[in-house]
Amino acid sequence: MKSFAIHSLSSAVTKTARATSETIVSRNADLLARAGYVSQLGAGVYTLLPLGMRVLSNIEAIVRDEMSMIGAHECLMGTLQPREIWETTGRWDTVDVLYRLQSRNGSQYALGATAEEVITAAVAPLIQSYRDLPMALFQISTKYRDEHRARSGLLRGREFRMKDLYTFDTDEARLEKQYEEICEAYMRIFARCGLAGRVVRTFASGGIFSQFSDEFQLLADSGEDTIFMTEGRNVALNKEVAGDEEALTLLFGSTRPALTEHRAIEVANTFKLGSRFSDAFSIAPQDADGTSRRVMMACFGLGTTRLLGAVAELYNDAQGLVWPRAIAPYDLHLVTLGDDSRIAEFVATLSDHLRRAGISTLIDSRSEKRAGEKFADADLIGIPTRAVVGTKELEAGVIELRDRATGSISRVGLEQLATVISTS
Amino acid sequence: MKSFAIHSLSSAVTKTARATSETIVSRNADLLARAGYVSQLGAGVYTLLPLGMRVLSNIEAIVRDEMSMIGAHECLMGTLQPREIWETTGRWDTVDVLYRLQSRNGSQYALGATAEEVITAAVAPLIQSYRDLPMALFQISTKYRDEHRARSGLLRGREFRMKDLYTFDTDEARLEKQYEEICEAYMRIFARCGLAGRVVRTFASGGIFSQFSDEFQLLADSGEDTIFMTEGRNVALNKEVAGDEEALTLLFGSTRPALTEHRAIEVANTFKLGSRFSDAFSIAPQDADGTSRRVMMACFGLGTTRLLGAVAELYNDAQGLVWPRAIAPYDLHLVTLGDDSRIAEFVATLSDHLRRAGISTLIDSRSEKRAGEKFADADLIGIPTRAVVGTKELEAGVIELRDRATGSISRVGLEQLATVISTS
Repeated sequence: MKSFAIHSLSSAVTKTARATSETIVSRNADLLARAGYVSQLGAGVYTLLPLGMRVLSNIEAIVRDEMSMIGAHECLMGTLQPREIWETTGRWDTVDVLYRLQSRNGSQYALGATAEEVITAAVAPLIQSYRDLPMALFQISTKYRDEHRARSGLLRGREFRMKDLYTFDTDEARLEKQYEEICEAYMRIFARCGLAGRVVRTFASGGIFSQFSDEFQLLADSGEDTIFMTEGRNVALNKEVAGDEEALTLLFGSTRPALTEHRAIEVANTFKLGSRFSDAFSIAPQDADGTSRRVMMACFGLGTTRLLGAVAELYNDAQGLVWPRAIAPYDLHLVTLGDDSRIAEFVATLSDHLRRAGISTLIDSRSEKRAGEKFADADLIGIPTRAVVGTKELEAGVIELRDRATGSISRVGLEQLATVISTS
Repeated sequence: MKSFAIHSLSSAVTKTARATSETIVSRNADLLARAGYVSQLGAGVYTLLPLGMRVLSNIEAIVRDEMSMIGAHECLMGTLQPREIWETTGRWDTVDVLYRLQSRNGSQYALGATAEEVITAAVAPLIQSYRDLPMALFQISTKYRDEHRARSGLLRGREFRMKDLYTFDTDEARLEKQYEEICEAYMRIFARCGLAGRVVRTFASGGIFSQFSDEFQLLADSGEDTIFMTEGRNVALNKEVAGDEEALTLLFGSTRPALTEHRAIEVANTFKLGSRFSDAFSIAPQDADGTSRRVMMACFGLGTTRLLGAVAELYNDAQGLVWPRAIAPYDLHLVTLGDDSRIAEFVATLSDHLRRAGISTLIDSRSEKRAGEKFADADLIGIPTRAVVGTKELEAGVIELRDRATGSISRVGLEQLATVISTS
């Protein structure tokens, strides 16, 4: 699933910056920029450099895999969204984060902030009969939102990557069942990204989409959201609905349990949309008995660059980033030391070995850098395992491995290397 | 490399339309829309439906693989490009296809039409020494161009997918050598997409980028470009430079050979940019001897949705699309006939077999469709091999295979199926 590569550390891969810049917008943005994962283009707009792109690809591959497993098909929707389809649902004037623009021929567009209108308009001609349902379509694409204030680095940008899934059904019970299955797939996605046990499904308001929604909140002291959880974490709700009697009754009935307060980062949000969008586009398929039926919808967002930023925000220490192995840009960071002429040859042999074992490796053979600089870069970049090869290691026939998260050091022979790394 | 899948034909995968719509904008758009690969969102803006997305993913996987082989690293650049960086190169007012928009806080942006400014600004702080070069970075992303008239379906849209690669070097000879290697990689990309021998490297004008450029032209009678070729096809030039003495002298010296005229579709375009962009962003790395040097650049575009459209434009017949196997949405289109209860069981066994062999398959088991409708859909969708399973085949223990391109029919046993398909 992860794309395999053995790359040499060059300035094209990363050029780290030691000093924290004077204007830290957020811990994730500062670390990601210093370690060479991103480059800021403007307020709330980032370019993903090769390291950042590798992490994003790993996250998106996991998302794609889980979407495929729940039977959703991938699309790629147009993002120059005609004004007319936003007027069809009455949202052209009400969604305040829309970027609006105009072609020189006078056509007016909203730049894709979300895609309920686009997908509903696209599937309308396809849904004529109950046989055409259920339907689940998703895309992973760049979205644009004209946020008043871009903040928190990659957590709330004006431009970001999002997976958005849309489901359609006439059978409400089946749609609800699928909704729960998709929420379970979301929890698997977070677990597979290294966040097992840290993401909480949270009852929240529905914003511009619906009355209520489910948020997936990553527990983090630096998070901008406040959530309340029951003991045992069985139920969580966003502070924004904590005073809403209807919400509390839905969740707890008449008994109100004790709740504890936590900070968290919202990494996904799912909504039951009812027939609001399908009605607007006049979708009314015939049932088996010939009567026309309403189509209910649900939508499921998951910000992939936000998830990248959230992991960077949470998994770091004073030396730099500490990636969960599942989404790390490489499995192994191999540092060579000294100018012993046998090292290049040994690294070539080692590379063959790593290639056969499918261990993605970043090799730092920069001759102009001292050992300390190379180790500091390795810590900042945060690849899970660091290996060192110098004359001493060559002669002893062992490689020194250091675990980025724990700092624990082990020495292994060449033939054990692949096994040790793939099981760590 | 191709993503493996066994899917059932449902309306979420495709719902074909028999009748050609009254307003055919182009053959590729008409076929792709009728076969359910795309849905038009607006003039020059298409949504890729699941079949179209599978073809695009196959094309982009080939592009990514070839970029990796020439040592380029993948990025993803911001597309809300600040006005300031376009003013740095003096192009804010001169590039007429830019969509311009404004944030509510007053920031002005160009929507990414190309990314010379973005990549050059991003790498400027990384290039301080000759050791930081050469550098080759690419992205595959959606681009936006405010074309006067969107035309030719997916061939010239206002929104499209493009791979854009940028190279940087102080050593002009090395940059030139790399330029040629990348042009060779382009020819491999086209060959791997099924277009071997049909794409011609063509000398052309450089438009908004440079004086001259190289275009990669797919020979096609319906193409909107006119090119001239020497006998033996060693040299080709775009009609736009056919009267340019400087171009002709560069290509042929003083002897002007006989040329034949051809129609073609431009599928890629590459440019030597000189130091125009790097100078604008004050990139002046130190050489080994301490002097500062100019950085020369080249850029290489390849439209992936245009390539999809060009293949659809070229590879079709009266019944529908005829995909080259390398980029087809599935390898096999399996049609079941009749309501024999043993068929479902047989298809399950067959699916296991196909899964183990890695043969992506679209299974049409729709009970409400007649055989003729299913065969017509298979022809329209254009998957390379069609298989039929009905009571007759069950009892004979053979599967009937039909080659979409040639119409030739063969009958094979279950155990030969995988071999026959993967070698055809």
